[in-house]
Amino acid sequence: MYNQEELKNLVDKAIINLSYNSEARKLIDPVEYILSIGGKRIRPVLALMACNLFSDKVDEAIMPSTGIEVFHNFTLVHDDIMDQAPLRRNFPTVHNKWNINQAVLSGDVMAFIANDCFLQTPVRCLSKVFRVFNNAAIEVCVGQQLDIDFEKAIIVSQEEYVRMIELKTAVLLAASVKIGAIIGDASDKDSDLLYEFGRNLGLAFQIQDDLLDTYGDVKVFGKTPGGDIISNKKTFLLVKAFEIASGKQRKQLQDLIAMKEFDPEIKVSKVIEIYNQLNIRNITENLANEYINTSFMLLEKIGVVTERKKELTLLASSLIGRDK
Amino acid sequence: MYNQEELKNLVDKAIINLSYNSEARKLIDPVEYILSIGGKRIRPVLALMACNLFSDKVDEAIMPSTGIEVFHNFTLVHDDIMDQAPLRRNFPTVHNKWNINQAVLSGDVMAFIANDCFLQTPVRCLSKVFRVFNNAAIEVCVGQQLDIDFEKAIIVSQEEYVRMIELKTAVLLAASVKIGAIIGDASDKDSDLLYEFGRNLGLAFQIQDDLLDTYGDVKVFGKTPGGDIISNKKTFLLVKAFEIASGKQRKQLQDLIAMKEFDPEIKVSKVIEIYNQLNIRNITENLANEYINTSFMLLEKIGVVTERKKELTLLASSLIGRDK
Repeated sequence: MYNQEELKNLVDKAIINLSYNSEARKLIDPVEYILSIGGKRIRPVLALMACNLFSDKVDEAIMPSTGIEVFHNFTLVHDDIMDQAPLRRNFPTVHNKWNINQAVLSGDVMAFIANDCFLQTPVRCLSKVFRVFNNAAIEVCVGQQLDIDFEKAIIVSQEEYVRMIELKTAVLLAASVKIGAIIGDASDKDSDLLYEFGRNLGLAFQIQDDLLDTYGDVKVFGKTPGGDIISNKKTFLLVKAFEIASGKQRKQLQDLIAMKEFDPEIKVSKVIEIYNQLNIRNITENLANEYINTSFMLLEKIGVVTERKKELTLLASSLIGRDK
Repeated sequence: MYNQEELKNLVDKAIINLSYNSEARKLIDPVEYILSIGGKRIRPVLALMACNLFSDKVDEAIMPSTGIEVFHNFTLVHDDIMDQAPLRRNFPTVHNKWNINQAVLSGDVMAFIANDCFLQTPVRCLSKVFRVFNNAAIEVCVGQQLDIDFEKAIIVSQEEYVRMIELKTAVLLAASVKIGAIIGDASDKDSDLLYEFGRNLGLAFQIQDDLLDTYGDVKVFGKTPGGDIISNKKTFLLVKAFEIASGKQRKQLQDLIAMKEFDPEIKVSKVIEIYNQLNIRNITENLANEYINTSFMLLEKIGVVTERKKELTLLASSLIGRDK
């Protein structure tokens, strides 16, 4: 059994060893840049751990797992264009360091570099693995579109919001563990259980991420809470607050969102005051816990001995803050 | 044997029947739009004709051929962003009709819709076909990068220019016929011959396209010649002229390019005057003819009876204007 660090090292090594068509350095520089500025390689490590549940030959899963990471970074490069984000992981975004055209084109080539990684999947499961990946890739695009649509929408329901984060975030985690399971020659039942495990884990992770941005401890969270409130980001908290607010509270929230000039600290504390009146923190924690409990229940059902699930359980726990 | 029109109809039908995730209409509207505003479906028709050289089961090649067309249109959507082009095939470009973010994201999803088409390749040749496609896709990105680099470069050699159009245009035509051949169960030798046929045909086609923009007959060409000269596009003609110009002629060309305000007709006639002094038209025609002759010579070598090559010969001839 490999642990998280060992698997991350395997992925990092595979990323460093990716070979590129070197005729246009300008195309590849941003690719190497975005792949080099960190990230925890959560998705490929999840894929390798899922493979390792069933098989000791995790090397068979390294290239497709790397493909997942390349694809994920492709989405970051293009999402950052759409969000006009200046920073990613505390480094300048690609379109900021270069320009939008370069970010479009270097992003594009990453989609095909990801394909190239997937084409190195063992032939016995190439078609199956590629389909799982590609369906997830299409869903991630749909999720990004819904996210854009929702930023402009006045009211978004909890159901719509959860579906959006499911598509934008959860399905790629789900596909990652399913891909690992398929390469590990898991049964269809176990592969599907892992997909559902990953989907629930992804939903819990994203909802907790929303929660932490408002209620997180700066020491644990690593950045000052409130960023989402200041930027009017449509988080689960805001969506839920709008859904259950009284007429008066809704008006207060709308006014706070509409403010052009404001003291950030005051805006954050006023929004949190409304959240507190509406018990948003508890509601959000309860929903995240539901997804967490479902994911661990699904993990238990998978047909390998508990000892074998240790690393995946540890990583899942750390992702949703159960290890602290 | 199917003719061009029959095969185009098969492709058009497959494009209309593509099924999309309908949760985000905004994502798919631009995809359906760009795929509906015409185009001759040259690449998929070439693929189907190449398949039909060796096999009567062209239906096996329809989805991967459709994937080539979807990929090609994906590159058009993103290239039009980079070129800030307002029109494509006389219709507003996607980023013009919607916006840049929408063009980035709807373009992205087309890359995965293309994958989805390729995943419907018969399993006996899936991996081989997908690799040929994906290598071409990466090369098309490299070609686009070189094209961007060259627009800013002062001097581009003939060799560099030909390599750029090879990557940006010719390799996808080459991959198209090779993919068709593989699905038609052609020998490796014949598949490789077809790739080289497509590559030479693509080079000839692009060089003739450059030639037509300056020397074309408005009745045949369909638009007033000179557009490339007016916009200082780095065509084969300009690259070659810079290469062989005398110091005085080079200075004249540079001055014409540097002009901010000018009468288009006068600029075009002055540049053509220099081209004529340098015999650029003949040089360009000779080079195009070299590629044309090579491509037809390669087509002759392919191991099927001449009668079977009729449709591919007709289409290739029409592409490089030999049918007039």
